[in-house]
Amino acid sequence: MITGKNYIGNQLSATGNKTFKTFNPLLNIENEWEITEASTNEVNQATELASGAYRTYSKISGEKKAVFLRTIAEEIEALGDELLQVYSSESGFPNGRAMGERGRTLGQLRAFANHIEAGNWVDASIDTAQPDRQLLPKVDLRKMNVALGPVVVFGASNFPFAFSTAGGDTAAALAAGCPVIVKSHPMHAATGEMVSSAVIKAVEKTGMPNGVFSNLNSSGIEIGQALVLHPKVKAVGFTGSINGGRALYDLAAKRKEPIPVFAEMGSINPVVLLPKALKNRAETIAQTYAGSITLGSGQFCTNPGLIIGVKSEGLTNFVNTLAKEIVKIEPSCMLHPNIAGAYETNKANAIAQSGLKVLAGYENEVEPNFARQVVTTVEGETFLNNPTLHHEVFGPFSLVVQCQNIEQLEDVISNLEGQLTGTIISDDNEIVKHSKIVNALQNRVGRIIFNGVPTGVEVCPSMHHGGPYPASTDSRFTAVGVDSIKRFVRPFSYQDWPNELLPDALKNENPLGISRLVNNHATADKIS
Amino acid sequence: MITGKNYIGNQLSATGNKTFKTFNPLLNIENEWEITEASTNEVNQATELASGAYRTYSKISGEKKAVFLRTIAEEIEALGDELLQVYSSESGFPNGRAMGERGRTLGQLRAFANHIEAGNWVDASIDTAQPDRQLLPKVDLRKMNVALGPVVVFGASNFPFAFSTAGGDTAAALAAGCPVIVKSHPMHAATGEMVSSAVIKAVEKTGMPNGVFSNLNSSGIEIGQALVLHPKVKAVGFTGSINGGRALYDLAAKRKEPIPVFAEMGSINPVVLLPKALKNRAETIAQTYAGSITLGSGQFCTNPGLIIGVKSEGLTNFVNTLAKEIVKIEPSCMLHPNIAGAYETNKANAIAQSGLKVLAGYENEVEPNFARQVVTTVEGETFLNNPTLHHEVFGPFSLVVQCQNIEQLEDVISNLEGQLTGTIISDDNEIVKHSKIVNALQNRVGRIIFNGVPTGVEVCPSMHHGGPYPASTDSRFTAVGVDSIKRFVRPFSYQDWPNELLPDALKNENPLGISRLVNNHATADKIS
Repeated sequence: MITGKNYIGNQLSATGNKTFKTFNPLLNIENEWEITEASTNEVNQATELASGAYRTYSKISGEKKAVFLRTIAEEIEALGDELLQVYSSESGFPNGRAMGERGRTLGQLRAFANHIEAGNWVDASIDTAQPDRQLLPKVDLRKMNVALGPVVVFGASNFPFAFSTAGGDTAAALAAGCPVIVKSHPMHAATGEMVSSAVIKAVEKTGMPNGVFSNLNSSGIEIGQALVLHPKVKAVGFTGSINGGRALYDLAAKRKEPIPVFAEMGSINPVVLLPKALKNRAETIAQTYAGSITLGSGQFCTNPGLIIGVKSEGLTNFVNTLAKEIVKIEPSCMLHPNIAGAYETNKANAIAQSGLKVLAGYENEVEPNFARQVVTTVEGETFLNNPTLHHEVFGPFSLVVQCQNIEQLEDVISNLEGQLTGTIISDDNEIVKHSKIVNALQNRVGRIIFNGVPTGVEVCPSMHHGGPYPASTDSRFTAVGVDSIKRFVRPFSYQDWPNELLPDALKNENPLGISRLVNNHATADKIS
Repeated sequence: MITGKNYIGNQLSATGNKTFKTFNPLLNIENEWEITEASTNEVNQATELASGAYRTYSKISGEKKAVFLRTIAEEIEALGDELLQVYSSESGFPNGRAMGERGRTLGQLRAFANHIEAGNWVDASIDTAQPDRQLLPKVDLRKMNVALGPVVVFGASNFPFAFSTAGGDTAAALAAGCPVIVKSHPMHAATGEMVSSAVIKAVEKTGMPNGVFSNLNSSGIEIGQALVLHPKVKAVGFTGSINGGRALYDLAAKRKEPIPVFAEMGSINPVVLLPKALKNRAETIAQTYAGSITLGSGQFCTNPGLIIGVKSEGLTNFVNTLAKEIVKIEPSCMLHPNIAGAYETNKANAIAQSGLKVLAGYENEVEPNFARQVVTTVEGETFLNNPTLHHEVFGPFSLVVQCQNIEQLEDVISNLEGQLTGTIISDDNEIVKHSKIVNALQNRVGRIIFNGVPTGVEVCPSMHHGGPYPASTDSRFTAVGVDSIKRFVRPFSYQDWPNELLPDALKNENPLGISRLVNNHATADKIS
């Protein structure tokens, strides 16, 4: 069933001569499948096919694209339990997570299908002509969003379904009308091939052009670089490390024609514990956070890596409870020996920083590739003076910053890099007194949470997942939710264009029945 | 009245020791005013002030910002004829153009005032909580656009009012809630100071924070570079040459925290003459285009620099009429000796290209800095093989490409770089037969025009002014119209945030009465 080959459009292809294997971190052995690296030739073929497919695919109706996306979802479901087993064998994630993430992935595909079927996303705007206007006649102008062109999507290590082959980036780009070339993540290449086979089946069943989707395997960086540099590629979606995302951003910025790279990268997701909350319920908060820190072995971009409070009896209670609770949790398996290894290295490097104290950590023996969680503490002053402590340790690691006073706490927040999320834990409306802290936190994050945890990213229109750099390369776009389609479109204006030749979204008759801005008023009415 | 000083927030300042003068191209003499270059110190002061002002200004209501923008417009009007005279003495543009461009600038400020007062631009989206949802409770999420931070605006040479000090970029950024630091264009620094004085009066009259606007003079590149590299600057707006725009883009991309640069750069605005149109009305089209090519000495980013047709009797008629008409037009003054000089150099360079023929040009003696228009022709094959011929010659210059057949014409279009506009001249619906040409042109441009001229950029919501690179650095945004505000905002999500602490746009009561997406349905209703 799994061939280890690439999909160049609808064709399986393996012209390269290098192979690699994926790894089962739970069993601590290589998986059996032999994956063939894509060749430069295959990069060119996939890109040419995508460029050709763009000509027709970008013009296909929202209705047809919606059928395509829903068929992808059906075909993924039709892969059944085997897909879940392959997923688990390449990620170490348990079956429950596999099912949950598959559900989320199918949900994303269907949400985009609904979104483009409804059709309002094109932001249609019409300004009708005024031939008699003084001093100059006014022309007829009509504007809507159109697809950018072929998009390269890099699969994420930590979401083999939801942010990989047919994940959020792919769904958004396909919904926009952009062909997609996936650079499959090497840690779950077999999962990627299976999901790709479902996409290709959907391409064929719904009559989409060959080349609207390709899937390339690679364990190194060359294939990804070649894709980003290819002149026919018009945008890039990436989820992963700051180093990886920045390297792609830099490559794309150096092109003769620079292209947008949306990279969703690291984040330590600061959590601010306000004094009264600490006084009233330090223990409950600590219990909740012990769970959030270790969820999925801490392998979430919204993992709370930084907790900040002012020194007090409450903070001491919090820290003590967190220390007690965190060791109760059974460690779980990380995605890959490389990720487990990086966790150990980064953890050791953090712990070696002067002034950082280990509060508690799981110390029993564990299976290979299992992550032992650690919580640490540091003084506010020390944190402020050591940028290393501001960096993400990807895994079940958290740092509690103990500030001298509320001013220092504000200082700590103001000096953070950009983050995906920030959380305020508050009691009895004490937050009202701390508007400076809230403001400082808002300036550093893309989403702010009241009395909750940052883990758990709801997929809905009001979710913004993206923050000031380095949380993402462009804070003006989200990586989650239907608005992520905006990364892959550009507005386009028609001037005095004949009505019968306009796209349906802009025709006088409004055949799609969508909401449009007509002479600056929103309406679904036709133009008479 | 004109001091030659910089505005660092509300204060006039001239701590630097270098000065320069602007130039009256009509009189061919330097203007009297001594302009003082900003110092690095002043760059830092302006940026710090802007960063401080951001904290409050970004939170001010749309209503108050609207009053501010309208007051700027009033204060510019109050400068009366003196401003128009200074404008003309620094640009060579006649009084009519000065009045027209001032009108457009005031119109832009007022359009943004209306836009933010109406309030829908924040794209408010609300997904209410579902505490009982299986398997996981759903949190309450609310999203809206917020201001990015301090924005640097580079004044454009060719629009001393409409794309400079208080022009489109500044109006968009201020409307968004971003403080603005203008790097004034050195060719019209005195005009810039006068307009700045109007902005500062409006700041003071409407109680806006000091630092919401600054204006820095500089005749070199260092001050602009220092601004783009300053860590507190969060976005850049630029209108000008490809070299200038790309240099700023590259600088911003190399920052530790890269920031978006929206540069609207060069364009040759291809015009396609379809066969029947040529057959039926070659002379009329030629007359129209002689006017469009020479409008404002060809100093528009939408100037038609490239006209493409298939060899035929009609094309010969067009070319002959264009040759006859173009010499009838009286040359006019360019903005500055440097621009007039560059025009002569680029024109000579183009004419020196092998295979390019001068069709006609104005040959009589002209005053210094006046531009003599030229139209040239070239074979399709020659054009395809010489990239130099694809470059803009800023000024009243146009090149007619004579293709062997319709396939070659399509080839010519497909090989063009990105453009702001593309135009199709068609008769009797012949365009229907040429969908390949239309598609190819659409892929290269941001606005497509039917039977018109690209010059004349209507300021309205349906205008898209921006195209694939190098027309602009990010084709996903427009430089003209109220949607240009999107360049300077980012979405921001509140999760489970207390209703009374939410911004008005997201409160249950909908006190602003704006249209919002509530659980994915557009409504202005309150949430009960």
